[in-house]
Amino acid sequence: MSPRPAHTLHAHQSHHGWDNSRAPALTIAPGETVAFQIRDASGGQITPASTLDAVRAMDFGLVNPVTGPVRIDGAAPGDALKVTVVSLAPSGWGWTANIPGFGLLADQFTEPALHLWKYRPDLSAPAMFGAGGAVPLKPFTGTIGVAPAEPGLHSIVPPRRVGGNMDVRDIAAGAELYLPVEVAGALFSVGDTHAAQGDGEVCGTAIESPMDIVLKFELAKGANLAFPRFTTPGPVTRHLDAKGYEVTTGIGPDLMAGARAAVSGMIDLLTKRTGMSAVDAYMLCSVCGDLRISSIVDVPNWVVSLYFPRVVLE
Amino acid sequence: MSPRPAHTLHAHQSHHGWDNSRAPALTIAPGETVAFQIRDASGGQITPASTLDAVRAMDFGLVNPVTGPVRIDGAAPGDALKVTVVSLAPSGWGWTANIPGFGLLADQFTEPALHLWKYRPDLSAPAMFGAGGAVPLKPFTGTIGVAPAEPGLHSIVPPRRVGGNMDVRDIAAGAELYLPVEVAGALFSVGDTHAAQGDGEVCGTAIESPMDIVLKFELAKGANLAFPRFTTPGPVTRHLDAKGYEVTTGIGPDLMAGARAAVSGMIDLLTKRTGMSAVDAYMLCSVCGDLRISSIVDVPNWVVSLYFPRVVLE
Repeated sequence: MSPRPAHTLHAHQSHHGWDNSRAPALTIAPGETVAFQIRDASGGQITPASTLDAVRAMDFGLVNPVTGPVRIDGAAPGDALKVTVVSLAPSGWGWTANIPGFGLLADQFTEPALHLWKYRPDLSAPAMFGAGGAVPLKPFTGTIGVAPAEPGLHSIVPPRRVGGNMDVRDIAAGAELYLPVEVAGALFSVGDTHAAQGDGEVCGTAIESPMDIVLKFELAKGANLAFPRFTTPGPVTRHLDAKGYEVTTGIGPDLMAGARAAVSGMIDLLTKRTGMSAVDAYMLCSVCGDLRISSIVDVPNWVVSLYFPRVVLE
Repeated sequence: MSPRPAHTLHAHQSHHGWDNSRAPALTIAPGETVAFQIRDASGGQITPASTLDAVRAMDFGLVNPVTGPVRIDGAAPGDALKVTVVSLAPSGWGWTANIPGFGLLADQFTEPALHLWKYRPDLSAPAMFGAGGAVPLKPFTGTIGVAPAEPGLHSIVPPRRVGGNMDVRDIAAGAELYLPVEVAGALFSVGDTHAAQGDGEVCGTAIESPMDIVLKFELAKGANLAFPRFTTPGPVTRHLDAKGYEVTTGIGPDLMAGARAAVSGMIDLLTKRTGMSAVDAYMLCSVCGDLRISSIVDVPNWVVSLYFPRVVLE
């Protein structure tokens, strides 16, 4: 069913940050398919044997290595690079951490925390959270993009109009992503694979998990997109919605404050109901809770909601 | 299956705005069930025979009448009022409008627009949009809340921590909503029923549709909620997710700007693909497109996405 990849880029063919002067690791023609080996988002700083010390010692200069760049012949500024996610082959292990200074509630969660996950690579069972909870899996790639036009080296952390570290949980198998091209050849790279994540990635990490991924590349000439867009081939929440949701809200004139309040409300609910620690609840929200903007027009107050799937706890 | 309501409040037993000095229309004990007749959000200013003139002449002082208030014996500040949505009986007609000055892209859509909907009250078929599109229905109540502690008359338009005009599309049949109580007796009112709406309600209106609704009231003493929360009894998007989604994004340091960009991107996509006008695409996004916060931690840029269900167009 899947096209056989004509090329493979290995995990060591990775780089840190975006720089359009970086030499391509591979040049392909539109229509070709490439297999990528992806390192975990810590770049190997966290392993299945790690302890909290690894979080404390994390070097942010080494995070989020991306495999590439791939030069696509004929890609020009104003085009869109169409990337089809052909398949993902998860590794079976992953990690979720609270990294001090990073995350939506970094001011409240100042101590490091780490959960190591083991899961079935065939995804036939949810992944078990130590503090309680069975998380259905849906692998995707968090960082996927092309080089920005602006010269120089740019941090890998923020997403941009050329994509990058978007952390959109539905850029999963079968998705067709359109990325705005800013430089000749596009210079595509990919990394930061996740076994599961909720909308928002609120604690700053998902189920960070190395995996192999196969992508197909095509060009949409002159698409002139303002921002990335994508198509999903089917439903996006059926793996976790069967028993409905617990939903908390944050209401007020600032969407960021609303999001923070909704997450805080869910942490309160989860700790009271299950007895898990607040930081465990925060990490669990990050891997399976979805932030939605419920209403954004009833001036001057908006409603942001966190949807937590009940199947995780039941 | 549904408890038979012990009381009925009729459509004329409605009021405009929140004021905790307003006399209750009904006093009940916890555990009781009440049927409410709900007027449409224009308060009768738009009818199935209306033209654009009705939008132009809209008196905002008359919008969003709510039926009530209901005093619940024993409710005290610090409690939560638990409201179970027992059932909704849709009327079969509704309206969606672009009202100048109101909506997420009010600066771009300055002319009035109106679509009148007819739909099967048994919801056995999607509602047809004139410009193209079949919208699956899921009725809910957009305005549901209790009186704020602050004295005086407060606009019905903004939602608050006591609820009100939250426009959360999943406060639908079977949902259990917990509202923070700020005054003795809670003083509950409800209105603004919608036959369908996407997360965000981006153009400012949904499928605005009068209907009857049955609610059950209970108390959670001393719940001390910061904001409303609710539980859904099951999945929330299966009525529209079968064929997947078209998704547009907005990326940057401001969630509001990201939301605006995501909606603008979807309007571009819909107009190019279907030939419908931009304002029709905007209204269609409002009734069935969902705004999600895809990522909110990759400093300094966040990703807001608009998910448009492909089943509406296919």
